[in-house]
Amino acid sequence: MLTRQTPPHPLPAQPPVELPETVGYRFKNRILGRPLDTDQLAHQRLGIPTALAVFASDNLSSVAYATEEILRVLIPVVGFFAFSLVVPITVAMLIVLFFLILSYRETIKEYPTAGGAYVVTRDNFGLLPAQVAGVSLLTDYVLTVAVSVAAGTDALTSAVPSLHSAHVAIALGFIALIAFGNLKGVKESGRIFAIPTYFFISVMGLMLLSGFIKILTGTHLPHAPLKPGHIKIGTKGATDAMFYGATWFVVAHAFASGGAAVTGVEAISNGVTAFKKPEWRNARTTLMIMGTTLGAMFFGLSALSTKVHPIPYEKGTPTVLAQVGRAVFGHGASGDVLFYMLQAGTMLILVLAANTSFADFPRLASFQAGDNFLPKQLTKRGHRLVFSNGILALAASAAALVLATGAKVDRLIPLYAVGVFTSFTMSQSGMARHHLRLREPGWRKGLIINSTGAVLSLVVDIIILITKFTHGAWLVVMIVPVMVALLVRLNRQYEAESQELEENAKTAAEAPILKRHVVLVLIDDLDQSAARAIQYARTLVPDELKAVHIAVDPLHAAELADEWRRLGLSRLPLVIVDAPDRRVARAVLELVAEEGADGQTEITVLIPRRMYKRSWHKLLHDRTAEQIARAVGQLPHANVTFVPFHLGEKLALHSHEGEGLRP
Amino acid sequence: MLTRQTPPHPLPAQPPVELPETVGYRFKNRILGRPLDTDQLAHQRLGIPTALAVFASDNLSSVAYATEEILRVLIPVVGFFAFSLVVPITVAMLIVLFFLILSYRETIKEYPTAGGAYVVTRDNFGLLPAQVAGVSLLTDYVLTVAVSVAAGTDALTSAVPSLHSAHVAIALGFIALIAFGNLKGVKESGRIFAIPTYFFISVMGLMLLSGFIKILTGTHLPHAPLKPGHIKIGTKGATDAMFYGATWFVVAHAFASGGAAVTGVEAISNGVTAFKKPEWRNARTTLMIMGTTLGAMFFGLSALSTKVHPIPYEKGTPTVLAQVGRAVFGHGASGDVLFYMLQAGTMLILVLAANTSFADFPRLASFQAGDNFLPKQLTKRGHRLVFSNGILALAASAAALVLATGAKVDRLIPLYAVGVFTSFTMSQSGMARHHLRLREPGWRKGLIINSTGAVLSLVVDIIILITKFTHGAWLVVMIVPVMVALLVRLNRQYEAESQELEENAKTAAEAPILKRHVVLVLIDDLDQSAARAIQYARTLVPDELKAVHIAVDPLHAAELADEWRRLGLSRLPLVIVDAPDRRVARAVLELVAEEGADGQTEITVLIPRRMYKRSWHKLLHDRTAEQIARAVGQLPHANVTFVPFHLGEKLALHSHEGEGLRP
Repeated sequence: MLTRQTPPHPLPAQPPVELPETVGYRFKNRILGRPLDTDQLAHQRLGIPTALAVFASDNLSSVAYATEEILRVLIPVVGFFAFSLVVPITVAMLIVLFFLILSYRETIKEYPTAGGAYVVTRDNFGLLPAQVAGVSLLTDYVLTVAVSVAAGTDALTSAVPSLHSAHVAIALGFIALIAFGNLKGVKESGRIFAIPTYFFISVMGLMLLSGFIKILTGTHLPHAPLKPGHIKIGTKGATDAMFYGATWFVVAHAFASGGAAVTGVEAISNGVTAFKKPEWRNARTTLMIMGTTLGAMFFGLSALSTKVHPIPYEKGTPTVLAQVGRAVFGHGASGDVLFYMLQAGTMLILVLAANTSFADFPRLASFQAGDNFLPKQLTKRGHRLVFSNGILALAASAAALVLATGAKVDRLIPLYAVGVFTSFTMSQSGMARHHLRLREPGWRKGLIINSTGAVLSLVVDIIILITKFTHGAWLVVMIVPVMVALLVRLNRQYEAESQELEENAKTAAEAPILKRHVVLVLIDDLDQSAARAIQYARTLVPDELKAVHIAVDPLHAAELADEWRRLGLSRLPLVIVDAPDRRVARAVLELVAEEGADGQTEITVLIPRRMYKRSWHKLLHDRTAEQIARAVGQLPHANVTFVPFHLGEKLALHSHEGEGLRP
Repeated sequence: MLTRQTPPHPLPAQPPVELPETVGYRFKNRILGRPLDTDQLAHQRLGIPTALAVFASDNLSSVAYATEEILRVLIPVVGFFAFSLVVPITVAMLIVLFFLILSYRETIKEYPTAGGAYVVTRDNFGLLPAQVAGVSLLTDYVLTVAVSVAAGTDALTSAVPSLHSAHVAIALGFIALIAFGNLKGVKESGRIFAIPTYFFISVMGLMLLSGFIKILTGTHLPHAPLKPGHIKIGTKGATDAMFYGATWFVVAHAFASGGAAVTGVEAISNGVTAFKKPEWRNARTTLMIMGTTLGAMFFGLSALSTKVHPIPYEKGTPTVLAQVGRAVFGHGASGDVLFYMLQAGTMLILVLAANTSFADFPRLASFQAGDNFLPKQLTKRGHRLVFSNGILALAASAAALVLATGAKVDRLIPLYAVGVFTSFTMSQSGMARHHLRLREPGWRKGLIINSTGAVLSLVVDIIILITKFTHGAWLVVMIVPVMVALLVRLNRQYEAESQELEENAKTAAEAPILKRHVVLVLIDDLDQSAARAIQYARTLVPDELKAVHIAVDPLHAAELADEWRRLGLSRLPLVIVDAPDRRVARAVLELVAEEGADGQTEITVLIPRRMYKRSWHKLLHDRTAEQIARAVGQLPHANVTFVPFHLGEKLALHSHEGEGLRP
């Protein structure tokens, strides 16, 4: 056995090398900005006006398509009678919204830290039902992105029709832009968000106000002009239609389409911690303001549509909102300016709505991954402290949906809202259970509110499911259970692994070492890299040390053996293993398996690894070292060590020669 | 410091595991057949008839397009006077062939082991000129494949015109098929090769014989029918045309196109070792037979074309050979059978010609790689003992050419032959130099023959270069020097590497070990995989042993430190390194750089690596371990060891528990 001693002829000391950053990392810094440290993770506290801007865009932006989707269902069946039905249906949906807001006021108070449907369901029903809520929400976040960018593109092409031919590319561009901004870690900076939100609210308000003033003052509001490409207008009359039971189905279907309007109502309950103190009270106020604003705009637009008679178009543009806006603002120069402002505001708030999902999806995914129900990688914060993997997963899924549907809002809507109302139902039932369990002061009132919310959500969910089943909701119905099953399978794997890993870990950490330690040095040529490996091998003070040459070319092996003898290296035995099938990794694997067959031998395989200076130098050599490492790793107690030898660093070596040596 | 002892509570012994083969390897066995051992590398010895079949296809198959390419140049300029010029031009090319054959007889005698242009040039002019010859030949092997499969496809679509719309796909299919066959290691089995070669020679002979008999007996040979799509027929008359100097250029151009006919003449000199004894004498005889056969067929076809007046078509099909064949055989039932046989034979020999390059290119590339002028990977024999990488490189390059030219023979021909005649020139000059140097008996005669061959090759090469320069030869003129420069650069890199690696290797192998050995165990959680790594660490008997935790999550780090204390693991110090930027690999790199700053410390970084049973299990975890290994490998004397812990193998472990233990 070798013992350690102060070396008489040491290898030249290697200088402390500089540690350059990799190209990839420097690129990342250039593109995304400097890295953020974990302790920079802090939320700014938001006042009510900024909070409204930050959290409300998803909800408020629904105005851009909710009325249109109601009309799109009604008009082909009941024709112009649709304009008599649209306001009652809108009001019905607003009643649902009212109860949802009441319910979420309870949630905000009871779960002031993280009140999303996932956490509420998990706390009250357990992990498995929470996965249903989680998957439903994740699905809907993907759909929110897809619907919002599609509708945002429609708002743009309603104003600039010549862009319509590129509308899928534009929608994808929006997704890329938002994803990039989120990877960069756009802070939930109220100011940036406030501009589009309040701009949209203002210009919508202006439009609704002008419209109603014109109606009240008896000024004529022109019907929207009809051009080729609008949807078919049904011919069934008013009373006529009501006699047929089938038409009630159409009304329910239209109501289900309107359900898209109340999505996003849960956003505030997810972010209560971001509010200024007292958080829950401020959050509640913001929720009320949001609800009222949405209600006013949704009702206003539906009401105006009864005068303007906008007919949706097959290709989705000009939108109903654009048609109403044009009719209200008129065609003069000032009308043009206001119209373009309306379209710009609509586009901006829709893009902002998509952005909201980019905050929610990665956060929810990281919760689920933290509970071992999604891949662990989703819990990892990236360069700029955001959950980069979640952002990329969301962007990819939404882009796939946009491509699959050709960025058409009316093809996406049937998939939408099923998930939202499922999660509403679960979260409200969870709240009801919460009240029953804890019976805190005022629990009876809370129980009534949340039970009503739960029942109402369930009813709407069933209506959506039934009326939209054949239009695409079936897909969601299939995907959610499959996803949940996958997540459960994944969870079981994680749990099994961690159980196995932790079992006896404590005693194992103190386990004595094995009886024998064999070190095998793989030698290809007797060169500097091999010399380094031999030097290192002796550092390990093994019980047995062998140099091993896998002979692919018998001639070369004979030469090596000769050289070995000639140099008097016989203190270190050279074992030559024939590999007639030229499978070096396999030969090493078999040799190691043999050495370790007794189960009491620790084997270290040393692989000299030449470190090349440039990547093209590396391309000139094969990857046998990696193959060997992969093969040998299959065996227990077989440890693979890469012993580096750095090529092309001779200069640095010479100039510092002898440095750092003690005499 | 820990010392080794018989363990009182050993970890359960791990049983000798079975060593399953990887999926990839099993797939390879299924597709390519069982692996061949290196000692199975043996050439069968070929007699003259089989040798002709094996080596002649490249050369003989040129008949399929040589006459056509001559006519394609002449007809647009001199019109039907082309049929008076085609025979003289053919004869001129046959004279060149005659001298080449004389020259190669010398080469065969003087270089009976490996007489390719590369080796001859290397021996007589040195490595650098040899690269020019090598690159020229490699280029031409690629072109041989492209031209042959394109012409083979034309032969097929001349018989079955409906296939023409898929002709690029068919050509690519041929390449794929041949490449697959060669990866499988189709032995140069004479019998398989003999069938198409002799079939082609027979049916060509039959066609020529019938044609001449008909001519001699005064039977009318009909002119080939003209359909739309043939090339433009020039209007310059006979004598008229000869007055213009420009027409001499056209004749030279036509002659250059005919140069494609003599490619492949060097094949026999590459394979002398494959002949039965006396090798060089049998090889010479075969060369003479090949030359005579080619000469007879080429002359015969050109001569028949003067009677049949076949006009080439823009899209390349029906070919001139097909037109002549149809005219000679006629349209009856027996004519049809013979015509289809002719086309089948032509297609088969052309595919076989492409196959020849698949033997030559990888072999030449492996020579060049062996001299360090091409990537080393080209010297590696694959599963079935063939140079797989060379086969794949050739297939990819040829496929790219076929795609780029749309599999059109007349677009490939101008690129062709430049390289062949360059390598002829170099190899014949090399032979002349050889005679001058060695002055063996009969050297004067040899010198005259090879000098003549060299001068003639050079003249033809210059003619081809000038007349075809603007048609595509410029590309070859550019590519060859660029490639040679690249190869030289690559060679310099290899030489520099091996020089550096071998310098002082002998003394280095005896170099004493460094003063200090520090082992760092990276700990993420205190689990079984960490316990395994700690156990292994103690086996190494280091001077210093530390457990290191890179703290991404401060909470988790605190928990780990607690557990560490609680379990009394304080004998092994736990170092917690903060990584506020969450870059684990970077943190380890910096720590190791610090530890090794004195240049006299050997550092071993132990990374516990969980070995998952299924690949999807692995997907659930990130690749931090690999990232750390890559980062730390940048430092000298920093050795990374993966300590495996196998998940999911508990059952096997239990059933063998305690086995192999000494009391």
